Amino acid sequence: MRDALIAAAFRLFLERGYEHTTVDDIVALAGVGRRSFFRYFPSKEDVVFPDHERCLADMTAFLAASHDADEPVRRVCDAARLVLRMYAENPTFSVQRYRLTKQVPGLRAYELSVVWRYERALADYLRGRFAGRRDGILQADVVAAAVVAAHNNALRSWLRSDGEGDANTAVDHALGYVQAAFGHTAAPLVATQPDDVMVIVSRRDAPLWRVVQEIESTLGRD
Amino acid sequence: MRDALIAAAFRLFLERGYEHTTVDDIVALAGVGRRSFFRYFPSKEDVVFPDHERCLADMTAFLAASHDADEPVRRVCDAARLVLRMYAENPTFSVQRYRLTKQVPGLRAYELSVVWRYERALADYLRGRFAGRRDGILQADVVAAAVVAAHNNALRSWLRSDGEGDANTAVDHALGYVQAAFGHTAAPLVATQPDDVMVIVSRRDAPLWRVVQEIESTLGRD
Repeated sequence: MRDALIAAAFRLFLERGYEHTTVDDIVALAGVGRRSFFRYFPSKEDVVFPDHERCLADMTAFLAASHDADEPVRRVCDAARLVLRMYAENPTFSVQRYRLTKQVPGLRAYELSVVWRYERALADYLRGRFAGRRDGILQADVVAAAVVAAHNNALRSWLRSDGEGDANTAVDHALGYVQAAFGHTAAPLVATQPDDVMVIVSRRDAPLWRVVQEIESTLGRD
Repeated sequence: MRDALIAAAFRLFLERGYEHTTVDDIVALAGVGRRSFFRYFPSKEDVVFPDHERCLADMTAFLAASHDADEPVRRVCDAARLVLRMYAENPTFSVQRYRLTKQVPGLRAYELSVVWRYERALADYLRGRFAGRRDGILQADVVAAAVVAAHNNALRSWLRSDGEGDANTAVDHALGYVQAAFGHTAAPLVATQPDDVMVIVSRRDAPLWRVVQEIESTLGRD
């Protein structure tokens, strides 16, 4: 019945527009009563995004099942991929919804609040993993925002292309950018190296002896 | 009259709660007519955030006045500081509004849409500056999101402390984290070095000859 309500709603949204479709119209087309609608969806907006609650629950469960050995930034990137998978399961529906959301300010606001909840789920996990760090909360919030922005950049490109092309590759590429910036250390490479790694940045045209001198001085050797 | 309406609105919001205050209550206390209210504020929500439109306009103008010599990530960090300045101009009002926004879901949604508009303003500027880059749009979106997240992390800490402490120092520190991650190259250091710089990452305990060999191979010297 839930699927029938979603199908009826989208048929009407596309035919008449979202604003000109009422819950009564939807239940009439689906052949069910109003109470059935509200058993599944708190409001008309919720029928536009029927799978986000499940996806949020999946994401929370996925993050809760993490191990200490999981690299935290990689883990939140994998969590973000759950959202992509939800969209990619049904490209036609996802593209229709994307167009609808762009047209209706109320749906745009709804979507922003959903995105915010995903971002909080990622940030909460990272806050836990970064608890021992100075600036752990700041780093968690920034990395979560960067992951969401990268994911959504790739997702939107795919939706704009009408669901053509390979969404996974695009999202992998986008998340790779964030992992390269924050992965492993979740901080700039040079600023927070573990003790056993050294990073040397040098002009290419510097004489080799100057570079070696720099390395020796970094290592405290002489 | 605008300031009188804001003062009346906040007095009532604090006394009766936001939901139990009507526009009629506000105009009655301010001693003006309903039309005067709507001349300044499209809705009751807008009176809670009276300065964001001006701040968004200031930010857009600030970014439009940028020069090519401005380092782009630094520039968007400076643009974000305009928002902080607006909050810090009136700490008492900002703290009251923060508490109100946390309690009222509708205001939280309004705030998310405002934050989104700031983020888009920063991203649009960066998209222009990164236009020649591969992945310029992706990088622009990710950096803008990271800047907003860092700014808001520091701003919220300051608001939670009831506007005590130095908001500027906290925001400088938070934005410094983003600048260190993305500044100058706006990309991971190792991945997109300009041609004249080399980066070597090595274990500290690697023999020096191995490091030199690595440098020579990186430089294509032998």
